[in-house]
Amino acid sequence: MNFVVLSLFPEIIKSSSDFSILKRASERNLISINAVNPRDYTLDRHKKVDDTPYGGGAGMLLSCQPYIDAYNSIEKSENSKTIIMSPQGKVFNQEMAKKFGQYNQLIIICGHYEGFDDRIKQITKAEEVSIGDFVLTGGEMPALCIIDTVTRMIEGALGDEDSKENDSHYDGLLEHPHYTKPREYMGLNVPEVLVSGNHEKIKEWRRLQQFIVTKQKRPDLYEKFLKTELSEYDKKILKKNNLI
Amino acid sequence: MNFVVLSLFPEIIKSSSDFSILKRASERNLISINAVNPRDYTLDRHKKVDDTPYGGGAGMLLSCQPYIDAYNSIEKSENSKTIIMSPQGKVFNQEMAKKFGQYNQLIIICGHYEGFDDRIKQITKAEEVSIGDFVLTGGEMPALCIIDTVTRMIEGALGDEDSKENDSHYDGLLEHPHYTKPREYMGLNVPEVLVSGNHEKIKEWRRLQQFIVTKQKRPDLYEKFLKTELSEYDKKILKKNNLI
Repeated sequence: MNFVVLSLFPEIIKSSSDFSILKRASERNLISINAVNPRDYTLDRHKKVDDTPYGGGAGMLLSCQPYIDAYNSIEKSENSKTIIMSPQGKVFNQEMAKKFGQYNQLIIICGHYEGFDDRIKQITKAEEVSIGDFVLTGGEMPALCIIDTVTRMIEGALGDEDSKENDSHYDGLLEHPHYTKPREYMGLNVPEVLVSGNHEKIKEWRRLQQFIVTKQKRPDLYEKFLKTELSEYDKKILKKNNLI
Repeated sequence: MNFVVLSLFPEIIKSSSDFSILKRASERNLISINAVNPRDYTLDRHKKVDDTPYGGGAGMLLSCQPYIDAYNSIEKSENSKTIIMSPQGKVFNQEMAKKFGQYNQLIIICGHYEGFDDRIKQITKAEEVSIGDFVLTGGEMPALCIIDTVTRMIEGALGDEDSKENDSHYDGLLEHPHYTKPREYMGLNVPEVLVSGNHEKIKEWRRLQQFIVTKQKRPDLYEKFLKTELSEYDKKILKKNNLI
């Protein structure tokens, strides 16, 4: 998977992708991350990439020319997808990450400050994607979140292939609580079942905790989950605990 | 506002907060950003901060001791709030950012890899906050998103005080489209009204575009907006365009 990020702050992309899972996936040649700076493509002699908005108003807008020329400079692979980070976009989630993972190139256009000339998205036909309902200065952090989430789904990117399935949101539910050593810390004990050695019981307890935690903290996700095709195993646990 | 981030990767926090709005706000002493590394507090002689989960399963969990000791080392201000980045948390949004902005210290605990020992959040009484319904390797990027969003709301942090109100999500609606020079680019023209010089018409067109864009792209936000107390000005535009 080749990620290309169009950004006025390529250093953020470079420094933040040099850690942990992203670094390891790069070293294993599972992914590559490139940053392209539209400022390197501006034809303005003062290296400007923005200008005042038509119709007046505060702030500056990113101009078409540097962004479109930078975009056109990228060598597109056959199976390439372009997105643009925008508060107007569809909100990113795990489902969307699965879809993005099917491409072998993901080009991410990041804005900064006030926003883009609207024609940049019209010309690149980029899909608008938002990271959530809040306002950020630039698209760099959201882009890195997307790169991380998509990379985690690539076979071999995680050290331990099993761990993915236990993540929150993987099957629409939140995670069960986790505990590690010591068995008692500041008066708080690890639940007995987890030290029982009974694997069947542990599995059932964890699944039940997922139901309880999701129901309590994210009733929206819980309702959605109940509407999916439930496994016999899940049905049994839910019934036993009067959850359905 | 003092931000303190508990993270195993303090370099990500340091390098990414040295740009743009965050850098400027730091230089103006409006904010300070500190990173505390729990690894510096571990009592394990191999500097380990994680251990295997009770009850078995893949991956490693972050242990109580280094996180709690690192947390306790932070000098808490009187009006301090602690959050923990967790996929189980309430999803962050602009409303929550406004609330966080009322504290003068925000402590953000970031996990990494598989997750935390559940007792870390019990002991710190941290509020669980999620950045969205997707899986990340660590809490660093979400923490930086939160720091950016909260900082933008601090008086004087933005270069241009006016620009905040035009942001998407500021009043529950998405932004109107923006255009800058040139008037024509690759056959695409700036809408006529924006070059008319008629400020009343421009204002009305922009507000109408906000309604149209939000209705089309985020019907959930649009419905929510319509249920709020509408201004006479908004009502007039909505009626004129058969939107209510």
